[in-house]
Amino acid sequence: MGISVVKYAGKSDDNACWGVLREGGIYRLNTDYATHRELMAGYFAGRAAFANDADKQRIAAEDVVFHSPIANDVQLFCQGLNYADHRAESGASNSAHEDNLLFMKAASSICGPNDTILRPADCRLLDYEIEVALVLKEAINKPVAISESDLPRYVGAVVMCNDVSARDLMFGAPMLQWFRGKSQRTFCPMGPVLYLMDEEDFSRLYTLQLTLLMNGKVRQSATTNQLIHRPAATLAEISTFANLAAGDCLLTGTPGGVLAGSNLKVGLAIITNMKNDRKRREKFTEAQLARTRFLEPGDTLELSIKTPDGAIDLGTQRNIIANA
Amino acid sequence: MGISVVKYAGKSDDNACWGVLREGGIYRLNTDYATHRELMAGYFAGRAAFANDADKQRIAAEDVVFHSPIANDVQLFCQGLNYADHRAESGASNSAHEDNLLFMKAASSICGPNDTILRPADCRLLDYEIEVALVLKEAINKPVAISESDLPRYVGAVVMCNDVSARDLMFGAPMLQWFRGKSQRTFCPMGPVLYLMDEEDFSRLYTLQLTLLMNGKVRQSATTNQLIHRPAATLAEISTFANLAAGDCLLTGTPGGVLAGSNLKVGLAIITNMKNDRKRREKFTEAQLARTRFLEPGDTLELSIKTPDGAIDLGTQRNIIANA
Repeated sequence: MGISVVKYAGKSDDNACWGVLREGGIYRLNTDYATHRELMAGYFAGRAAFANDADKQRIAAEDVVFHSPIANDVQLFCQGLNYADHRAESGASNSAHEDNLLFMKAASSICGPNDTILRPADCRLLDYEIEVALVLKEAINKPVAISESDLPRYVGAVVMCNDVSARDLMFGAPMLQWFRGKSQRTFCPMGPVLYLMDEEDFSRLYTLQLTLLMNGKVRQSATTNQLIHRPAATLAEISTFANLAAGDCLLTGTPGGVLAGSNLKVGLAIITNMKNDRKRREKFTEAQLARTRFLEPGDTLELSIKTPDGAIDLGTQRNIIANA
Repeated sequence: MGISVVKYAGKSDDNACWGVLREGGIYRLNTDYATHRELMAGYFAGRAAFANDADKQRIAAEDVVFHSPIANDVQLFCQGLNYADHRAESGASNSAHEDNLLFMKAASSICGPNDTILRPADCRLLDYEIEVALVLKEAINKPVAISESDLPRYVGAVVMCNDVSARDLMFGAPMLQWFRGKSQRTFCPMGPVLYLMDEEDFSRLYTLQLTLLMNGKVRQSATTNQLIHRPAATLAEISTFANLAAGDCLLTGTPGGVLAGSNLKVGLAIITNMKNDRKRREKFTEAQLARTRFLEPGDTLELSIKTPDGAIDLGTQRNIIANA
């Protein structure tokens, strides 16, 4: 069994500290780790000592504000279109050999798990994406072959995140580059739980159940068993061209059920306006809004990820949407 | 007048140190700055003391190996299609109101200014892009208005870089995301000179002349006066959605003259294969290779950037291409 840690502060206090989460109670860690990197290094250097470092006094989870357990100086490597049902709703092909879609989110998009998600003034197509993120415990600085059984050497933790996406800023961007539409501040709520994994937990990595509710209604529901490009193969693939540092994250993609979708009008809006960014954005927005409505101020999200047996429970994110 | 610094090591020595470059000679700085961030902080804290810190002994530039003055833990914010002639050759529109194309390169792409550029095994369309990069001296953590006259508050240095690009990995990537094709190791030679700017240097920022030679023949030749989205406006724009740290870089885009180009066949290869990544890549590669040849093992590049009066001289990069 691994251990669930959280970063939290009192409700009228900005000084966050680390704690162990056990049966709904938080037990403060006496060691003051600067970031999740130091905390993970401490855990893997000596698990018993790490657990014994926790205070005996129980703090109720209701009495604290959770912060992101992931510091905002990491690299966020992201996968896209990594569940078949999300590929289908996006209008992407579902051939047997899809390439891995890789992109980056700016680290300043990271925010607390229950922070307000801010809709940018120029965004009309705000969308959610529940995802499992893996956190590296060891740097990868050269091409490495990684099998599923090698994963415990490189991956030290899992954390829930919401890859919030401004679809109009993504598909209206010059050359369709997603960077701006994925990287806005508050576009990556992370936590509350950073689950530090033991070797035995890796067998549960593909039994995580993801559930996202928008205004109380289930919109996304899937298990990690449906992942197309799995973590070991994906980390090996990234290692062929880029370095990953300890503490960096791999966001593994979102399942079906997001608000953005595809139809003939959406497809034509992109294809027929490839060279005119503003017209493409206008037509794309029009076509998406004719399909459904997107996130608006006052809407609420509730996200949770856990194994059926509850052995791994990444907690719950509750967010409200507001205008930036 | 600002000051030109370099990071260098002896030819049989991996321990790089910092030096001031003056009239072709290097004068070692006695202070051992961990990265360009600390060095820039030291310079702007006291310029006279910084200059006086240099050793009196002259080291010939021919006797050293230059390293990248930029550490590989920065964010590389990049602009695309930021010169009119490059827009034209790329087949992008040249309307009066083009949006700023923004993307990121992984920091592990940074290498020394004269390092061998490695062509990935799966790349057939390797290309160069000479660019001026600005280096931030102050973090930007919220939206800020920045006029050209405010620039000295945020920008502390300029450095030359080559935004090496694998065109087939860019346009063959799922959803055309450029991240992989821009982020391969050795795809961002930087330096040799980190030019620390004084206020008076900012008037020269738009007189920098960029020259790139491939196998001895001039391929790119332009001045920064042709930049479409200028640094102040671009930094202000990025600040509306993401944070920039001291030491982070803004790569301002490349002028015309790259190897990739556009024609009907290239355009159709993209448009007609939007949903089939492998076919798009194959047809795009075919169409590009029918136009021209790309960088191959043994090819050489020579890049230089300076003002006509020589007041700012970012030095010369000389690279050879090899297979990874």
